[in-house]
Amino acid sequence: MSIATARVGSNIAFIKYWGVADETLNIPLSNSISMTLADAHTTTTVAWDDTGVLERDVFVLDGATQSTARSQRLTRHLDILRDLAGVEWRAWVTSENNFPTASGIASSASGFAALTVAGCAALGLELDATRLSAIARRSSGSASRSLFGGFVEWAQGDSDETSVAFPLHGPEHWDLWDVVAVVSGEEKKLSSAGGHLLAKTSPLLDGRIAQVDGWLAEVRAAIAERDLHRLGPVIELDALAMHSVMMTSTPSLLYWQPGTLEILQAVRRWREEDGLAVYFTIDAGPNVHLICEAETALEVETRLGSLRSVERIITSRPGPGPQLLDEHLI
Amino acid sequence: MSIATARVGSNIAFIKYWGVADETLNIPLSNSISMTLADAHTTTTVAWDDTGVLERDVFVLDGATQSTARSQRLTRHLDILRDLAGVEWRAWVTSENNFPTASGIASSASGFAALTVAGCAALGLELDATRLSAIARRSSGSASRSLFGGFVEWAQGDSDETSVAFPLHGPEHWDLWDVVAVVSGEEKKLSSAGGHLLAKTSPLLDGRIAQVDGWLAEVRAAIAERDLHRLGPVIELDALAMHSVMMTSTPSLLYWQPGTLEILQAVRRWREEDGLAVYFTIDAGPNVHLICEAETALEVETRLGSLRSVERIITSRPGPGPQLLDEHLI
Repeated sequence: MSIATARVGSNIAFIKYWGVADETLNIPLSNSISMTLADAHTTTTVAWDDTGVLERDVFVLDGATQSTARSQRLTRHLDILRDLAGVEWRAWVTSENNFPTASGIASSASGFAALTVAGCAALGLELDATRLSAIARRSSGSASRSLFGGFVEWAQGDSDETSVAFPLHGPEHWDLWDVVAVVSGEEKKLSSAGGHLLAKTSPLLDGRIAQVDGWLAEVRAAIAERDLHRLGPVIELDALAMHSVMMTSTPSLLYWQPGTLEILQAVRRWREEDGLAVYFTIDAGPNVHLICEAETALEVETRLGSLRSVERIITSRPGPGPQLLDEHLI
Repeated sequence: MSIATARVGSNIAFIKYWGVADETLNIPLSNSISMTLADAHTTTTVAWDDTGVLERDVFVLDGATQSTARSQRLTRHLDILRDLAGVEWRAWVTSENNFPTASGIASSASGFAALTVAGCAALGLELDATRLSAIARRSSGSASRSLFGGFVEWAQGDSDETSVAFPLHGPEHWDLWDVVAVVSGEEKKLSSAGGHLLAKTSPLLDGRIAQVDGWLAEVRAAIAERDLHRLGPVIELDALAMHSVMMTSTPSLLYWQPGTLEILQAVRRWREEDGLAVYFTIDAGPNVHLICEAETALEVETRLGSLRSVERIITSRPGPGPQLLDEHLI
């Protein structure tokens, strides 16, 4: 039995990944940029069974053994690792998120990145972060970005080798915080993996993609200069553009809930009326990520706490890249 | 003193008017289609003062004399009528809406249409509905459609003469109702007249406009066949596409409130889970128009009444074109 454990932070995208150019490889329609999160991470232990005792992969998530149906995406990812190593071993996988599922924090990003790092390490495959990024991307596009800490860009590329993430700046570059306002604990009906296939049905998709290169340049410059007031308007615009594509897909994906709008309107009011330096972004769900500098985070949390529809607040700083741990979850 | 009174219904657009090709003439970027409303109308009396006693136009709206600032748009519209008639008379204008301002029902549509009809009649100008439609359009694009009853299309055109509305079917063609759920009594910060100028700043505008001709054809066919399940998906898509353009303009126009999303999500749930035949559309504001056939309207009203954020419900049937009344408000 060969075993390894990895801890990997999730990430929040400033310029989003939505829609695929190649659905088998998860090649996106544009680059994207994110910040890896220190305080929202997945810890995953992979134990490969070289004895043949395990008849199928076993997947325990947050203490609960998952059904075969719920393990399908994991098994397909393990197949990629088995192919690389030339083995047919089954694996025992135990995974824990330190943040709630459906919190608006992408558990598939940190989950598939951690599975990739731990699984490859346990197989003795010595792969660099770029190669691991490509492997993680195969099962979750945004997972490719969690292979690096701090501020990260995922290059669209045009092949399995070239569609990989690369670091822009380490986590120490800018003390930018992500304050997540959770407005609904309900699981979304459609995973974002399914939504990516629908993007092409939206009449608004091309308009967003045509602008993204300019927005990426703005975001790179804003991060380099640590200029929140340059970063903020672009990330709000891109989040709204992505949700516009989602809403106008067929079928229409309306991820927002009443609480989403309460927070969006509040953030704009706080900024316009009180000069509070905070901007929003929204992933494929109803919850809202408030992006601010460390010095503003407490005020943002306090104000969020007074909104009727905020169920829970999860705050994270910029985080490191993947870490291999000596202790195992099994 | 020559006097006339007109009553004109507002209208709800199924394919929206958003953005202008010519801002002076209010030439739109595409055709649009609407239903004129029977139960949400404006009654306007215009009395032209040929004695020279009035020093300026006087505008009394719902019993309140409006300031000069709030009368500017009205005065500019009266200037168009004065030019046509070759007079310099001031006017006393009294106008009453039988629906609340900022209810999500377009008071500028019925208001400028009624002002045009009453003002021209009192001047003795004998103009047909097409010509009146062109005049009303100058001050409020959607007013051009209220010059006809029932189901109406506004042809984009390319000049003052050709950008006019024309009737598709009379109000008796289809007993389709508009149940308006009012979620907020707040007046919007920006009038839609201002928003039209911002449309061009959205990266998503071209994508919507490129699709509109196909959507117009669908809506025309669905109305002709009285097929709500053909009409509904297109009007929802176009409303979401228009709000996508609004949200991604610079500055961003986010008209929606929490209650907007409560209703959108509820409508989709009622339809998917209970098979209720109802679809939504949304104008430039937070309120939601629920479109259904007469037989479903009571059920829709009852369900809306159980939603936390619905402040008021206003229901309207398809209505007639403008009527000249014998009695005057003055």
